[in-house]
Amino acid sequence: MRNIRIIIEYDGTNYNGWQIQKNGPSIQEEIQKALKKITGEDINIIGAGRTDAGVHARGQTANFVTKSKIPADKFAWALNSVLNEDIVIKESEEVPLSFHSRYDAKSKLYSYTIYRGLFPPAIMRHYVYHVRFGKHMDMDKLRKAADYFIGTHDFKGFMASGSKVKNTVRTIYNIKIEEELEYIKMFYHGNGFLYNMVRIITGTILYASIGKIDINQIPDIFITGDRDMAGITVPPHGLCLEKVYYD
Amino acid sequence: MRNIRIIIEYDGTNYNGWQIQKNGPSIQEEIQKALKKITGEDINIIGAGRTDAGVHARGQTANFVTKSKIPADKFAWALNSVLNEDIVIKESEEVPLSFHSRYDAKSKLYSYTIYRGLFPPAIMRHYVYHVRFGKHMDMDKLRKAADYFIGTHDFKGFMASGSKVKNTVRTIYNIKIEEELEYIKMFYHGNGFLYNMVRIITGTILYASIGKIDINQIPDIFITGDRDMAGITVPPHGLCLEKVYYD
Repeated sequence: MRNIRIIIEYDGTNYNGWQIQKNGPSIQEEIQKALKKITGEDINIIGAGRTDAGVHARGQTANFVTKSKIPADKFAWALNSVLNEDIVIKESEEVPLSFHSRYDAKSKLYSYTIYRGLFPPAIMRHYVYHVRFGKHMDMDKLRKAADYFIGTHDFKGFMASGSKVKNTVRTIYNIKIEEELEYIKMFYHGNGFLYNMVRIITGTILYASIGKIDINQIPDIFITGDRDMAGITVPPHGLCLEKVYYD
Repeated sequence: MRNIRIIIEYDGTNYNGWQIQKNGPSIQEEIQKALKKITGEDINIIGAGRTDAGVHARGQTANFVTKSKIPADKFAWALNSVLNEDIVIKESEEVPLSFHSRYDAKSKLYSYTIYRGLFPPAIMRHYVYHVRFGKHMDMDKLRKAADYFIGTHDFKGFMASGSKVKNTVRTIYNIKIEEELEYIKMFYHGNGFLYNMVRIITGTILYASIGKIDINQIPDIFITGDRDMAGITVPPHGLCLEKVYYD
């Protein structure tokens, strides 16, 4: 038995997310079907992050155990030959049998892309969130709001209500903000993210940038853990899992 | 009668290019149909650049003459309300009746985006050209090759064979090259471009970067005008008309 780690890029537009669902296609299912085709085995793959419907990934990481004799680095080639164009295996390599892509992940990098033009974009519209209040955004406020999220905090107020996670303390190491033309790209690097956390933080930062949330009240949300004080959950299609880091 | 100038963004993936064709949809036709819907008039629009099938635009510019009483700046709103998501009018304004979007264009900015990862990209695959020789590319050579094209040259050797244009002298003011992860984006700003010129120059620069064309022989192509000495015509989907400049 060998344990194979793969790095996956996918366009999540037409999928119900990473995880196998009863209704609708999932990335996990597509890859497992491809593995069945090339190995004949029924393989369960473990993804580092369970991305939601419509969310993309440039660096999702997963692992699976197989009896197949295919050389580890050739799995990428073999899988890509049977997968459709929405899903691309960027790398494959053998890792110790003890490796678990989710439990062993040390940190993750997500990006969220906003388009602030007056009208929605035609190009790349499946990868960016068009904000209708773009011209009212104050980039200084946006950056100041983002700074509040860096560090170790109780992010309970920035988790989708209904989640059952008990420990809601996470650390965000860094938030990098890039501007290019009418696009704003925010990179979040942290040791872990609660359900919808990146999307709610982004919604909060956006609301802070237009004065709809008072920047100085962001620390209160950490204290109260009150989801209703935070901003909207921005839509999934602006989100991309860029990279998963391991030791 | 008023003359209206519009700036257009489009995803050219599913179109036979800008210009009305007998077979297949065109951007021009879609906009003219939208104009018919909102004004009732049969309007012929003039585009600054006749982009090919599959080519995108973020800043195509066009103009048309109309009797409609719609305020000039409201044409964008009205057109966007009837156009499909592939085409977005970013701006509309009234210009003098003498204005002609093609003849009056002083310069144009095109971008060409390359992806040099081992496997094709899943995300943004309709907007980038995947080169299979990515790991053999030498960025120093690429930049040096690009430098040869800046300035005023006879670009006859970099024009699709069969074109009937007589004056093949053009000026490229600047070529800017941006690198981000596995993406390379090249911006070409020039006073005008011959048919397929950006795509052939890009193909030549790419071939130079892997030593398939000797950089020092690029000036010879200007002298001989021999299309066969230049590189391949890279595919249309990496190309985007970013902006058209006027006085």
